[in-house]
Amino acid sequence: MKKLLFTPGPVMMSKKVLKIGSTQPMYFRNGEFSKIMFECKKLILKLLNAPNGSDVVFIGGSGTLGMEATLINIIEKNQKASIINGGGFGERFAKICKQKSINFSEIKLRLDENINFDTIDKNCKALFTNAHETTIGRAYDLKSIGEFCKKNKMLFCVDAISAFMADEIDMTKQQIDAIIISSNKGLALPPGLCIIILSKNYIENLIPCDSFYMDFKNYLNDIKRGQTPFTPPICIIYQLLERLREIDKKGILYFNKKASNLAKYFRNHIKDLPLKLYSKFPSNAMSAVEITNQESAFEFVKKFEKLYNVTLTPSGGNLKEKLIRVGHLGNLSKKDMKFLIECLNEYFKGKK
Amino acid sequence: MKKLLFTPGPVMMSKKVLKIGSTQPMYFRNGEFSKIMFECKKLILKLLNAPNGSDVVFIGGSGTLGMEATLINIIEKNQKASIINGGGFGERFAKICKQKSINFSEIKLRLDENINFDTIDKNCKALFTNAHETTIGRAYDLKSIGEFCKKNKMLFCVDAISAFMADEIDMTKQQIDAIIISSNKGLALPPGLCIIILSKNYIENLIPCDSFYMDFKNYLNDIKRGQTPFTPPICIIYQLLERLREIDKKGILYFNKKASNLAKYFRNHIKDLPLKLYSKFPSNAMSAVEITNQESAFEFVKKFEKLYNVTLTPSGGNLKEKLIRVGHLGNLSKKDMKFLIECLNEYFKGKK
Repeated sequence: MKKLLFTPGPVMMSKKVLKIGSTQPMYFRNGEFSKIMFECKKLILKLLNAPNGSDVVFIGGSGTLGMEATLINIIEKNQKASIINGGGFGERFAKICKQKSINFSEIKLRLDENINFDTIDKNCKALFTNAHETTIGRAYDLKSIGEFCKKNKMLFCVDAISAFMADEIDMTKQQIDAIIISSNKGLALPPGLCIIILSKNYIENLIPCDSFYMDFKNYLNDIKRGQTPFTPPICIIYQLLERLREIDKKGILYFNKKASNLAKYFRNHIKDLPLKLYSKFPSNAMSAVEITNQESAFEFVKKFEKLYNVTLTPSGGNLKEKLIRVGHLGNLSKKDMKFLIECLNEYFKGKK
Repeated sequence: MKKLLFTPGPVMMSKKVLKIGSTQPMYFRNGEFSKIMFECKKLILKLLNAPNGSDVVFIGGSGTLGMEATLINIIEKNQKASIINGGGFGERFAKICKQKSINFSEIKLRLDENINFDTIDKNCKALFTNAHETTIGRAYDLKSIGEFCKKNKMLFCVDAISAFMADEIDMTKQQIDAIIISSNKGLALPPGLCIIILSKNYIENLIPCDSFYMDFKNYLNDIKRGQTPFTPPICIIYQLLERLREIDKKGILYFNKKASNLAKYFRNHIKDLPLKLYSKFPSNAMSAVEITNQESAFEFVKKFEKLYNVTLTPSGGNLKEKLIRVGHLGNLSKKDMKFLIECLNEYFKGKK
């Protein structure tokens, strides 16, 4: 029996996309590959409802590389970044700033604490937030943050790595200037490719980048002819094209709805189990649940995988023993979710 | 008929390794994945004859990311890098330094000009060179550079991206402190993974890194338990393990010899064609040949691909019209090389 992944990444891939992973990567400095890149770019801009003048950076590496690159291409030493830090991934933006000696000012949020916009430092060039703080499973209201940024003339940069495909991410409606996504979450591809979508406003505000590999100017220049400055993860790009066509065909709302339905089903069926949804503002991408019967979440996840061949994940840091994270992304069906619920029932109540 | 790649990367992959590209990537923050990483690390250290105390960084991204990371983890603002610049890829080290405001001093080499060690700035912390300047197909004598570095107490850092597997790369014999390789050249895997092998001496000289994603300290810390700080390109790692086992079984000398034989065969059979080996010090990885019949190399490569379904590559910059690069890396057989020679004969002389 194949192992089922209810993880926030990597996630279950479709057979068709998996198969493309076996394609011999071809030489890419030619029109054939440029055509693939152009189509990927067009489809991504469409899926995110990117306003005119937006453009796309395709860069080999993980989502964290994208977070760093999105910071260092826009905030100069004498400027400042504003950061919403509601957990480990918000904190990551702050850690990057510290390591790069970039000035920043952050607001730290306790679980489910509302963003008090009055406390945000308005003397910043750009605001950085996660769409979904994946360590605790909390989704932010991007529209209201976007309005705040617009009003205060700050660029709005969103790590949508785990939210894309599950929650609504709409560059126009939410007034976003930079969106970071990675291949191995909602796109349900292997890890290795990071994609950053930039608004005209972000592009016009680019600064001299102090990294050679992460310099957006070179990527934006080369994508004009469907190329990248350095060898991209070619096989993942082949898979990306197939996946984007599939998403485009059904429409992104279909996938948002699918994740939402799986999330609702899961949350409705754990009510009499010792599992309690952690945040009141969950993303459709994932349910972070507290284990309330004194078991260690970390040990539970290991035991559960052995018993049922189903992978869930704990959280990190001091939530490692407390939270179980159950993903709703990727090629999962309602049948898979039913199976998970049956296993959880058997585990906790000794019955299927 | 499948297209044959005689490119310096990506290169022809074996069926077995290609097939692994279709594996569903599994959750990786566990002992199962750590086991894979440990075996990869052990085999890489063995293949490069790395001295005791050496360690390995696995990082998602292209070889250029590895070049930048190897520079910025060792050269502080008040220190200096020495660079051997014999073409576009040597120049890349210099460009990275410029963009990062790292002090450097370079020696520029004309085609086949010997390295005059007296002209190298000895007041540098580390020396950076390519093993094989891939733009012109020139291999350097790493052993003599290693001796020079040792004598002058400079760390010796080698981009072996295109030379690994084709030419001898031996960390002990050549006294190398850092080797940069990438997945899509001699390893014959899809692009997306960069591997950097570091000596004890390099590791002891690490500086505070100003990039979050490229900070070697975190990678070296996490690899102790078979992990990486950020999601690695999992599917390529699966393929890497299979490939390393295959290389280990036959021994790396088998593969060096294979590339050497293909290179010799090719070079022996173009003698009466309007193709002339460019450098007197070619690598086994590739033959860069000048086209001597006034044709544009760039146009030739395009025409040749259409006629024979065989991919060769031009060079870049001002050599674009002049040089054709013919790779000898990856899953190519003597039969493939014979076929190439037949096609070249037909193209230039109208006969097979």
